[in-house]
Amino acid sequence: MSSDSVLPLLETPIIVGFGGVGVDFLAVVPFFPKPDAKIRTTEFKVQGGGNTGNTMTCAARLGLKPRIISKVSTDAPGKSMMEELEAEGVDTSFLVVSKEGTSPFSYIIVDSQTKTRTCIFTPGYPPMVPADLPKANLLSALDGARVVYFDARMADSALVIAQEAFRQNISILIDAERPREGLNDLLGLADYVVCSENFPKAWTEASSIPRALVSIILRFPRLKFAIVTLGKEGCIMLEKCVDDESSHIEEMDVDSCLTSLTKTKDDSIAMPTCIASPVTKLIAEGIGSVCGRLYFGTTEKIPPSELIDTTGAGDAFTGAVLYGSCQM
Amino acid sequence: MSSDSVLPLLETPIIVGFGGVGVDFLAVVPFFPKPDAKIRTTEFKVQGGGNTGNTMTCAARLGLKPRIISKVSTDAPGKSMMEELEAEGVDTSFLVVSKEGTSPFSYIIVDSQTKTRTCIFTPGYPPMVPADLPKANLLSALDGARVVYFDARMADSALVIAQEAFRQNISILIDAERPREGLNDLLGLADYVVCSENFPKAWTEASSIPRALVSIILRFPRLKFAIVTLGKEGCIMLEKCVDDESSHIEEMDVDSCLTSLTKTKDDSIAMPTCIASPVTKLIAEGIGSVCGRLYFGTTEKIPPSELIDTTGAGDAFTGAVLYGSCQM
Repeated sequence: MSSDSVLPLLETPIIVGFGGVGVDFLAVVPFFPKPDAKIRTTEFKVQGGGNTGNTMTCAARLGLKPRIISKVSTDAPGKSMMEELEAEGVDTSFLVVSKEGTSPFSYIIVDSQTKTRTCIFTPGYPPMVPADLPKANLLSALDGARVVYFDARMADSALVIAQEAFRQNISILIDAERPREGLNDLLGLADYVVCSENFPKAWTEASSIPRALVSIILRFPRLKFAIVTLGKEGCIMLEKCVDDESSHIEEMDVDSCLTSLTKTKDDSIAMPTCIASPVTKLIAEGIGSVCGRLYFGTTEKIPPSELIDTTGAGDAFTGAVLYGSCQM
Repeated sequence: MSSDSVLPLLETPIIVGFGGVGVDFLAVVPFFPKPDAKIRTTEFKVQGGGNTGNTMTCAARLGLKPRIISKVSTDAPGKSMMEELEAEGVDTSFLVVSKEGTSPFSYIIVDSQTKTRTCIFTPGYPPMVPADLPKANLLSALDGARVVYFDARMADSALVIAQEAFRQNISILIDAERPREGLNDLLGLADYVVCSENFPKAWTEASSIPRALVSIILRFPRLKFAIVTLGKEGCIMLEKCVDDESSHIEEMDVDSCLTSLTKTKDDSIAMPTCIASPVTKLIAEGIGSVCGRLYFGTTEKIPPSELIDTTGAGDAFTGAVLYGSCQM
């Protein structure tokens, strides 16, 4: 999203993120090891990670005031994580900090030849439970918030927070990367969902992504926006509009609608663009129909020489969606 | 080595160990990952490691007073390493502790199905340099020491320490796991060498392990003992004896000598045994001859159900050799 295309925010919106934070141990190796091999790293770096950590960092960089809720330990990874988030402008005062145990971390084996990134994740211990976040802290964390983000991890606590946000009419955005325990309960309360490329079809068994988005919007009637990211191909977004029965709205097959949007794509433009359909009755044969607007977003064309690392690109996208949702 | 078979030590001998210490991150996974996979650990444990750390721990458990010289950082792994060594009775006051950088650590992927252990080692930073150990500290560390152990890492500093130990007539034991930079210089000052199974033949190009041990003893005239570990098969040791020209010493081919020792092995005995040849002129055709004694050591027969983990078994063996060398 180019900074020219978004409106300036009059006040700094507060958002809340709940889910995974962690430390990434980036271990660069000359080649991916075979089992039982002994190799050594040529480079080693520790950096903050986790979907919620990354997304809140992006939101802070875009100018929002994010508060983060998660659980870490007072070990070295936990401390470095907190310092990094605070330095980025993320409010860490609602983090649950355990004096014992280990903070969640990923050991990432980066093969410097083939560029593969193999992630071995160790969950934090002890795990977060709803009792870790007393009601008073939850109310303070949500105080004045415009949107609450969930990466759908730690389902029990997530649902408690989402129910309170719902009760207070605070918008809810879910990052649906893959099917997770409790995800459906969260989606039942959600206003926005951002899905990974494979999630919608896998989850709905629909034959195309646009049809899957219609299916998701119909299944969770509170959803205003269902978004799917497609890596360097951009994204597809389905916005539900109020179906004003009195006015005449055209009907269109949702797959054909996407095809017509992608046809207008201009490959000579390096900057990201967003192509929107008019408000239409979008039909997914055999699934149902939604009155709404389909969007096709393209990405910036970045020369390969400028590409360093796409880790967290999806989280940065979601951070931008959070920014956009604060403008609505 | 059974505790009955060793003599009690009249005083507690001080030994010094110089080389690698580190932390092992043991990450148990359900299967070894393919490149680009995302998996999670089912179990995670942090424990001290490194050849010198392990060997000094064993020496302390056997009742010696080990001092350790190495370099770590004040990060969490460095702190946990120091606490663990101190709890084991290893004197850590000569450790060089860097306020910046990272302590050396290994991330070990333990496949719970196939039991493979894949080690990815990240060296400590900044690396140890001879200036890290001022002469006064070195002299204090060596004060009263009976033996100094080297795992042949950090060659520059190792050589400075070995030269001072040599000057003070303190015995030197080298753990020769694999060819390393500066290893030959250290072996030139050494009294004892403990080799891994493949090292002697690889290093000397001799056709058998006994012939390789003769070659090593001839090449480094200060060596009194050359030992090679064979895993569960035990060990072979070659002790050099003073060649008293006046007495009549039998000659024997060194390979035949080992064959005759192994023939006397009694497989019905579960406890480890040590079978020694008489003092003999051991001949390695084409290499030379050594007046000495060949030993064949067997291991304890441990039922598979009692076997948990052989990590550090070689280091424990070397710790026992250190104990033995203090009895001489």
